[in-house]
Amino acid sequence: MDTLFYPKVVAVIGASPQEGKVGNTIVKNLKEFKGTVYAVNPKYKEVLGLPCYPSILDIPEDVDVTIIVVPAKLVLGALEECGKKGVKSAIVISAGFKEAGIEGAKLEKALVRLAEKHGIQLVGPNCLGIINTDIGMNATFSKVAPSKGRVAFLSQSGALILAVLEWSKQSGIGFSKVVSLGNKAMLDESDFLEYLAHDDSTDVILLYIEGLSDGQKFIKVAKKVAKKKPVIVLKAGKSQSGAKAASSHTGSLAGSYEAYRTAFRQSGVVEATSVEELFDFARVLLKYRKAGNLAIVTNSGGPGVMAADTCDQFGIPLASFDFETIRKLKEFLPAESNIYNPVDILGDADISRFSRTLDILSEDDNVGIILAILTPTAQMDFVKAAECVKGKDVVCCFMGGESIKEAEKILMKSNIPNFFDPVRAVKAISVVKKYSEMSIREDVEEETVVDVDYAKIEDVLDKLKKMGSRIVGAEGLPLLDAYGIKMPPYGIARTFKEAKEIADRVGYPVVLKVVSPDVVHKSDVGGVKLNVGENELEKAFFEILSNVESRMPKARINGILVQKMVEGGKELIVGMKRDPQFGPLIMFGMGGVYVEVLKDVSFRIAPITRKEASEMIKEVKAYRILRGLRGEKPVDIDAIVDLLVRVSKLSVDHPELLEVDLNPVKVFEDGNVVVDFRMVLDVKEV
Amino acid sequence: MDTLFYPKVVAVIGASPQEGKVGNTIVKNLKEFKGTVYAVNPKYKEVLGLPCYPSILDIPEDVDVTIIVVPAKLVLGALEECGKKGVKSAIVISAGFKEAGIEGAKLEKALVRLAEKHGIQLVGPNCLGIINTDIGMNATFSKVAPSKGRVAFLSQSGALILAVLEWSKQSGIGFSKVVSLGNKAMLDESDFLEYLAHDDSTDVILLYIEGLSDGQKFIKVAKKVAKKKPVIVLKAGKSQSGAKAASSHTGSLAGSYEAYRTAFRQSGVVEATSVEELFDFARVLLKYRKAGNLAIVTNSGGPGVMAADTCDQFGIPLASFDFETIRKLKEFLPAESNIYNPVDILGDADISRFSRTLDILSEDDNVGIILAILTPTAQMDFVKAAECVKGKDVVCCFMGGESIKEAEKILMKSNIPNFFDPVRAVKAISVVKKYSEMSIREDVEEETVVDVDYAKIEDVLDKLKKMGSRIVGAEGLPLLDAYGIKMPPYGIARTFKEAKEIADRVGYPVVLKVVSPDVVHKSDVGGVKLNVGENELEKAFFEILSNVESRMPKARINGILVQKMVEGGKELIVGMKRDPQFGPLIMFGMGGVYVEVLKDVSFRIAPITRKEASEMIKEVKAYRILRGLRGEKPVDIDAIVDLLVRVSKLSVDHPELLEVDLNPVKVFEDGNVVVDFRMVLDVKEV
Repeated sequence: MDTLFYPKVVAVIGASPQEGKVGNTIVKNLKEFKGTVYAVNPKYKEVLGLPCYPSILDIPEDVDVTIIVVPAKLVLGALEECGKKGVKSAIVISAGFKEAGIEGAKLEKALVRLAEKHGIQLVGPNCLGIINTDIGMNATFSKVAPSKGRVAFLSQSGALILAVLEWSKQSGIGFSKVVSLGNKAMLDESDFLEYLAHDDSTDVILLYIEGLSDGQKFIKVAKKVAKKKPVIVLKAGKSQSGAKAASSHTGSLAGSYEAYRTAFRQSGVVEATSVEELFDFARVLLKYRKAGNLAIVTNSGGPGVMAADTCDQFGIPLASFDFETIRKLKEFLPAESNIYNPVDILGDADISRFSRTLDILSEDDNVGIILAILTPTAQMDFVKAAECVKGKDVVCCFMGGESIKEAEKILMKSNIPNFFDPVRAVKAISVVKKYSEMSIREDVEEETVVDVDYAKIEDVLDKLKKMGSRIVGAEGLPLLDAYGIKMPPYGIARTFKEAKEIADRVGYPVVLKVVSPDVVHKSDVGGVKLNVGENELEKAFFEILSNVESRMPKARINGILVQKMVEGGKELIVGMKRDPQFGPLIMFGMGGVYVEVLKDVSFRIAPITRKEASEMIKEVKAYRILRGLRGEKPVDIDAIVDLLVRVSKLSVDHPELLEVDLNPVKVFEDGNVVVDFRMVLDVKEV
Repeated sequence: MDTLFYPKVVAVIGASPQEGKVGNTIVKNLKEFKGTVYAVNPKYKEVLGLPCYPSILDIPEDVDVTIIVVPAKLVLGALEECGKKGVKSAIVISAGFKEAGIEGAKLEKALVRLAEKHGIQLVGPNCLGIINTDIGMNATFSKVAPSKGRVAFLSQSGALILAVLEWSKQSGIGFSKVVSLGNKAMLDESDFLEYLAHDDSTDVILLYIEGLSDGQKFIKVAKKVAKKKPVIVLKAGKSQSGAKAASSHTGSLAGSYEAYRTAFRQSGVVEATSVEELFDFARVLLKYRKAGNLAIVTNSGGPGVMAADTCDQFGIPLASFDFETIRKLKEFLPAESNIYNPVDILGDADISRFSRTLDILSEDDNVGIILAILTPTAQMDFVKAAECVKGKDVVCCFMGGESIKEAEKILMKSNIPNFFDPVRAVKAISVVKKYSEMSIREDVEEETVVDVDYAKIEDVLDKLKKMGSRIVGAEGLPLLDAYGIKMPPYGIARTFKEAKEIADRVGYPVVLKVVSPDVVHKSDVGGVKLNVGENELEKAFFEILSNVESRMPKARINGILVQKMVEGGKELIVGMKRDPQFGPLIMFGMGGVYVEVLKDVSFRIAPITRKEASEMIKEVKAYRILRGLRGEKPVDIDAIVDLLVRVSKLSVDHPELLEVDLNPVKVFEDGNVVVDFRMVLDVKEV
């Protein structure tokens, strides 16, 4: 991809001398490019002083990158010529592809095939282009070129790039590379992430996406990249509408945005919630990578308190100063100053008081970043203040308008982030903690190995295939068994005699449940009997049959599940929903109201390791209940971890499983068992 | 207070010709004042061209307001002269009062007494001054004067005013009145709120506070004011440290910030969480008071989706358009446009497409506010776009830098809010819904009447007084009884014979609990026996005695509580903590893990009405459980409402109660009972 970003020779196919045309703007934008630019257009001999050729084949030297801006129907022809010319990369600006309907989608497929045939890397189509400030290459039709800097920005929205480039001029953010992803027919966000991980000009990668081309590829790549440098993502499209049609608890809670959030988290990508936050985070991460305790110094009490409040809210620890620091501060600060954190140097503080305080705090090893909050008092000289924060680990909060303009420029030059609002400043600083926690995680573990009795599986799947039912209950239990997932001893009885045999074997009391692909809510039709003793067995068995027959006469009855009754324990839910983008999304939570009312659940995308499973369990609020409240003994967390990795393995092995609900699972001080179970099969696949 | 804000004659006591002195800046700032200004200072004959008098008594006409900037020790003398002169209001800028220690606090008390003696209204001391743009009066030492506008800003931090005034210049916010509250020795935020409610120049009131002078006064005043115009508050100091020392569940959850939040909510005041949000909310509320369904129009898909996501998050409904609207949009928008909400007019949209879309949406009665998102495409003319949103109910999100500068000025002039970030724009818009929901609430109800058996109370309080114990258990039950709070039949037994008599009377099974002011965790020392039948009574009685005697030999035992055992029902917690600022803070939640682990509780400040009690119950997440899950019958919500207003009454009547914990309360389909109870008494007061 180096050729794409660092070409020596580029050609604009569709270059135009006509003001306002995209093919004109791009040629203009390439004026600063430190390489050779050729124009291609059969209509002209010259475009903006450049020689213009009828075809790329006529260009007298090798071309590395072409920028194609001709109408959609001419793009294939142009690319064919690029192939002949041996061009390595093509940026297709032209619209009229997948985004424009069925015909466009066909054209896009043809385009990809052609590019593959010629070994050409394709950016777009339907994009704004790319920028590499390292070599002055603005291969976009944005009128504004960004300043040089160390932020790379990948965006699925070209319009957002236009907006951001303009706005970055006044907020002092500079870019290394900018990529408009367009339709991502070939190169997608993961490909660019992978490249940027090794790009020496880039320190922070920003990503705006509406969807991902390949979720699992993204996780794999982002996990590696995020360990090298921060990746911050803004995701648009968080609606939960996709979740509405689900047939299980897991399904209804595992919306597509949940899957995205889980993927970001799991791969160490920091999520921003707005455009402003995306760049706030970038400004701070450009400068600071390590979280430390924060010191606040302020010439105004109120804003200092607001900052401290926000630290509290975001879990940013305030530094406790060394005795020596406190002694030194006491020595010269007025008696009314607060010398603890936040350090209030008072409204009449001048630059020397500010500067000296800063020096002292910088020398204290307990202090990580210093947040310097200054309001525009008569005594404060912001330009001098900006000069004296240079070279120190400071984030500024210079609260003013006109009077801080000059100071702001100095701060921008030194890449020192400055915010007007102390709350916003601390929120931005919070990203350092978030990023450093994620990036210090150990290297990606190997997938946890699970023992599976694969011999058993064939048989079960065969049976399920024959059933042809979308929703599967007890008939699927042998599948769980094959994956070493524990359940109470059971059997499925077709006659009372069988039921008696099973019950005698598993031991009383037992639970009876109707087994039917047509009965979704078994209790509602009287299809369940709990705590059945030996003497009640016959009555219970026939009651279930008659209940179901009278209330759902058309339901197919595959038998009655006879299961040993399990008492006590805490109820959990473990589930899976197959996300179209990321694959199996594993869910964990405590059962009953915790799931239904409080929606207190956690997610991971399979395959998960034991470590990830363990994190999932700790993430739910109800975790404290599992650890044991008021002297209660904790439940067997290891057993839950084991269950989660087994469900993960099951889900990865069988793409035909769309949803799995183990609900409830009962967990004890020692071990756990799955008490009830349901899964949704892709009937076309089975 | 009209004299303070609209004086004809003002005098600056401590005026100075010396550049940089506060007494100089203030005289300069009063240049634009449409009234007469006098300087007072024995050292000078003239200050900045004004006649300067040795004392205010020498001024040849009546003075309405004096601004005092002399050193603290001279302030009393100056105020005495103001009194003699018949001055109505004094703004004391001078510092060196309560904020400066004990001596200063004494001086401040003397100042207040003197002001009261002379009937002078006092602003400050230790403040920046006040501003009234209506009459060009900038009676502060801020170098920057605000533009005229319809926002009033009250701030406990003078430095924040300095910062905000500078910054408002570039963000286009104008002010009607600005008040630096200072030490609030006399006039406080509530007094100013009350005045501003009737101020025709003010549409929105902003308030920055660190603490309130009088919490109950604030609630009373703010309730009335917020019904007339929006009051938006930013509160600094949210730390929960105060809550740590509490001795009950309620106490530990009811921190002082919880009390503030509750007070704001209860009085209809909108809370902002940052300085930026304070002004974002103001900008939107200046223009819009009614929530309606939002229509989004955008020339870029991504930002439109981000806005829709944020609507979803904040519960802002997106408008469903009339058939007619859709027909009209279809008629002229390109086929690829999205004509439903968000309306995507595509990247090549020019001003006529934008303007026509806006016209059509404005005519649709389903549409409240329109959010217009525009990115800087080659086709978009922002100045024209700004012109065509005028007069329509639009919030703008013009996403650009240099290219939107001119347009921004036009929008500012028409008070049309504009944001760069679509997420921030929608968050700002969300305040309209919040405010309108609060302001349409019916007028403040009368306090709900509760029947109390006051005759019984004297006796109980006498006994508790004699006990002299801070923590009171069963001994306090008669107090609950007097307030009509229901509990299972019980008695306190000193002998087994008494226990037997009580148990026979209340019926078996019973619960036995040790009654001791020294035993806080009764179960931990074996001081509780549940489900005790007639035959086990004797054994259980003596076991408790011996358990407690062996484990806590020094504990005083006041008897054994014999209580009828209550089975079933759902567990609630109802509590009260007396907040030093606001008085009794009533708490409600479901018991057990809902309180301990999930902290799912709601608060109101007493006295509460039945309506407020009912709101409290609905606010907790677990409310769905009370309404009945999966076909279960709902519990008796009315009985809980009744209990809450009784606890409110109890708390208001008895300031000596610091904390009350009814935990658990059991609620049934019909009625509820308090099963266990503890209260904390202010032993000095009893």
